[in-house]
Amino acid sequence: MSTNVLRTTDGWWAVRGDRAIRIETKAATTAELIADRDAVREAAAASDATGTPVADLAALSPVTTPCRVVAQMVNYRSHARDSGFTGEIPPTFFRKASGSVSGPADTVVRPSHVKFLDYEIELGLVMGAPLPLGTVVTEQDLPSYVAGLVITNDVSARDVQLTKTQFYESKSYPTFTPTGPYLALLEPEDFAHLLNLRLRLSVNGDLRQDRTLADMIVRPAEALTLLARFQTLDPGDLLLTGTPGGTALKAPPKAVEKIGALLPPAVKWKAFFKSQARNPHYLHAGDLITATIATPDGRIDLGEQRTAVADAK
Amino acid sequence: MSTNVLRTTDGWWAVRGDRAIRIETKAATTAELIADRDAVREAAAASDATGTPVADLAALSPVTTPCRVVAQMVNYRSHARDSGFTGEIPPTFFRKASGSVSGPADTVVRPSHVKFLDYEIELGLVMGAPLPLGTVVTEQDLPSYVAGLVITNDVSARDVQLTKTQFYESKSYPTFTPTGPYLALLEPEDFAHLLNLRLRLSVNGDLRQDRTLADMIVRPAEALTLLARFQTLDPGDLLLTGTPGGTALKAPPKAVEKIGALLPPAVKWKAFFKSQARNPHYLHAGDLITATIATPDGRIDLGEQRTAVADAK
Repeated sequence: MSTNVLRTTDGWWAVRGDRAIRIETKAATTAELIADRDAVREAAAASDATGTPVADLAALSPVTTPCRVVAQMVNYRSHARDSGFTGEIPPTFFRKASGSVSGPADTVVRPSHVKFLDYEIELGLVMGAPLPLGTVVTEQDLPSYVAGLVITNDVSARDVQLTKTQFYESKSYPTFTPTGPYLALLEPEDFAHLLNLRLRLSVNGDLRQDRTLADMIVRPAEALTLLARFQTLDPGDLLLTGTPGGTALKAPPKAVEKIGALLPPAVKWKAFFKSQARNPHYLHAGDLITATIATPDGRIDLGEQRTAVADAK
Repeated sequence: MSTNVLRTTDGWWAVRGDRAIRIETKAATTAELIADRDAVREAAAASDATGTPVADLAALSPVTTPCRVVAQMVNYRSHARDSGFTGEIPPTFFRKASGSVSGPADTVVRPSHVKFLDYEIELGLVMGAPLPLGTVVTEQDLPSYVAGLVITNDVSARDVQLTKTQFYESKSYPTFTPTGPYLALLEPEDFAHLLNLRLRLSVNGDLRQDRTLADMIVRPAEALTLLARFQTLDPGDLLLTGTPGGTALKAPPKAVEKIGALLPPAVKWKAFFKSQARNPHYLHAGDLITATIATPDGRIDLGEQRTAVADAK
């Protein structure tokens, strides 16, 4: 069974039901906490009579920064359709600045120059061991490399993303990677249940994204193998594995896109964003985003992320 | 006057002419070396009679890793023309994995799946102070943030870059960021000479790139201001400021590109790379790349980078 770990300003906690038991550890970083697995097991096995109500704790991101934050582009079939992709999609990675990581109840802040703010629920893999260059990770090996899972929201400034073509800035503003509440530390036998994980994201109670990992294109073991072709990872690093369909952004119909390709970029984007201004699904100040990731049987349950949206002052 | 610093496996050296004087410092990282500026000054002021011939030293990258490596997309007018850009280009950043940083004499290794390997000489800015979010950096402030300069080569796998659209993987393979030989630590008065810096890159003695910073679109102070809109930097971090025209890759003529936009991506790229197969300027095993960056008067001179090209075994 997986163990849910929660971080607060004064330490780490193992969660059992609605109570949290303090983990006796000197770990300051997520990598150090993962290395001190015995302390986690001890807390998880302790009587919960001495625990603190989870509801009384203010959870921080269970992934500490700085760390590498790497993300997979277009990695669910439903999101590929939303984004207008047809045919084969080359597996593609990009980086987010780890300064974008924020807590599971922190407000998502829209920079004043951003008009089209979008959400993307993603399963985050937290590394538990170094991934050397050239590693081939099989399904059986996955537990040797991945320590646990977190809910992440790959918040995206669509007007910055599409006009600049490189995703880096548009997804790296502070508060653009809400993470947590729980780091679910997995046991090897939990990995057989990954494809049952269901990702659900709502805005003001309106369900926008709702898919299981069965819709995923490049699965975690293959993703790590592809990543290891060019870069190493270390314990505590975070891989975001892509978002399912249902984001506010939808690609224009193919015919419109092909006409757009003939226009100068500035004209094309002006027309596109004019059409997007009528799309009610982008995020606005005062919105509340709720996100959950869990298996139907609750064997793995990453908790609920609740983040409000505000405008930069 | 700037001081050229060189790093070897056993420490740091101040360069005076063709001799190097050991810097008495405990610095292990570039950030620590920058913080120990007095030790650098002391070595630079010492008699060079006791120095070691620079030719006897095997230079490593003067930028130690891990560090943030951020790069500017299309930032010289001549490269924008090469790349087929017309009209305004939004200033755009992307990341490179710092595992790609290699020494100034290390071999550039072509991964076996890469067919179109290209070079991009770039001026690298090495940070000397934290860059907090929201910082506005003026030309006058620049010396407070930038400690020094290095030659970098933003080696690029064009077939990976163009088909994946995100630049991250294509520019992050190991040895894809040759850096050095010298870290030129600048004095405040040196910054007035930046625009005179001339970047020159040759392949097998054939001059391919040759421009001064006057051709640059977004200059360093503005680039740092734009970067600080979304991310922080720390001492020792590296910003690559874009490459001038002359890379092997040239965009197809506009008419061809607009026809290409109407084709499915796989068909478009197949046709494009078929045409590129006849382009003799891509890098091949056995090629020697030489790169220099200096002002005409030698006030700032980052040395010569000499890297051979080999195929992965």
